[in-house]
Amino acid sequence: MIKALAFDVFGTVVDWRTSIAREAAAVFAKIGREDIDPARFADAWRGLYQPAMEECRSGRRPYTRLDLLNRETLDTLVERFDIAADEATLADLALAWRRLDPWPDSVAGLTRLKTRFPIVTLSNGNVALMLALARHGGLPWDAIMGAEATGIYKPLPQAYLGTADILGIAPNELCLVAAHHSDLAAARACGLATAYVDRPMELGGAPKPDHAAEQVWDYTAASLTELADRLGC
Amino acid sequence: MIKALAFDVFGTVVDWRTSIAREAAAVFAKIGREDIDPARFADAWRGLYQPAMEECRSGRRPYTRLDLLNRETLDTLVERFDIAADEATLADLALAWRRLDPWPDSVAGLTRLKTRFPIVTLSNGNVALMLALARHGGLPWDAIMGAEATGIYKPLPQAYLGTADILGIAPNELCLVAAHHSDLAAARACGLATAYVDRPMELGGAPKPDHAAEQVWDYTAASLTELADRLGC
Repeated sequence: MIKALAFDVFGTVVDWRTSIAREAAAVFAKIGREDIDPARFADAWRGLYQPAMEECRSGRRPYTRLDLLNRETLDTLVERFDIAADEATLADLALAWRRLDPWPDSVAGLTRLKTRFPIVTLSNGNVALMLALARHGGLPWDAIMGAEATGIYKPLPQAYLGTADILGIAPNELCLVAAHHSDLAAARACGLATAYVDRPMELGGAPKPDHAAEQVWDYTAASLTELADRLGC
Repeated sequence: MIKALAFDVFGTVVDWRTSIAREAAAVFAKIGREDIDPARFADAWRGLYQPAMEECRSGRRPYTRLDLLNRETLDTLVERFDIAADEATLADLALAWRRLDPWPDSVAGLTRLKTRFPIVTLSNGNVALMLALARHGGLPWDAIMGAEATGIYKPLPQAYLGTADILGIAPNELCLVAAHHSDLAAARACGLATAYVDRPMELGGAPKPDHAAEQVWDYTAASLTELADRLGC
């Protein structure tokens, strides 16, 4: 039944929090601001992610690439934390989202899953960001789909339905793989198959904010290699 | 200067004529029509390619995926050659464009080029077609760009400019790799860098129809492995 696997990326395939905190810490050391907790900074940055996309989802703003939203939300944090850094440093830090490290099982899991299924991204990251991330971490995607390909941000239905349409398959032939119940719930409402991958350390061990959206998913695994086991890859 | 390589695919990376002739020959054998020359049939099919896209380029028809155009032009040939085949056979033959074999140097060349540059398609093939072709031949693309990503067919400027824009780079930081002078000329007019790969057997040894568009390109090579040499990969 499943003809392709589409992956949420931030949190599901890559560990954004550890990577962003590491890059922020390097900047804070450079500018003598070791008083700022880099993990708290990473969480604050991620906290501005949904509101920034909501501007586009609501129609108040046309689709705008995540690279630019990340720069805008960084500027908000620069003000909030009173950070004094030069433009080159901030421009580079904004692109830290292109340099997130994969979870330890991601490359091995994707490589096995790819032997049987086309594997594509279904992320809110734009193409240039996803491409850089793939080259940074060695993620062997068959194609980069999702927000920029469909011109719309998850969890709006067209992000899921448009990705299936571009792949030339029916929604129920596409399986979303994600560590977030809310993402999977939106995909299921569009008719997609669903695979949950548990990433308990995405928020450093703190509980995820989307418990209420939990359902019994078509597949559940503790890693992408375990998902490969489940799918017979 | 060059930050990414974008590839024409049909004729440049894959040998469409041999593969289409082989698949057509199998169909003709099955239906007892060995009187039709499969190479002539492949050339006739390719001959309907530009006119079909021109309907979209001219604005007479909205952007329509190549998979569908290929099916429509096949139906034209079915009538022209008076071919009696069932729907399943024709539906499968229309997708023969998803199963074209790479030239012998393509995978090795792309693999080397990818070590230094992001490599993307800049083809008129739609995403599902390009994805299938990549899995069929083991083509290690970083991303599938071109007609469907930009919503427009080459050689219209936005196909080239839109691909550079999505990649987040300037037109002169993107190099088109193609076996066709007309494609390279259109890319150069948009400010792209250009690399010509000679594919003398694309039309079975017959001369190419775009001699008049020949220029001195930024790079010239007899294969993708030779292009890797030229680019220091």
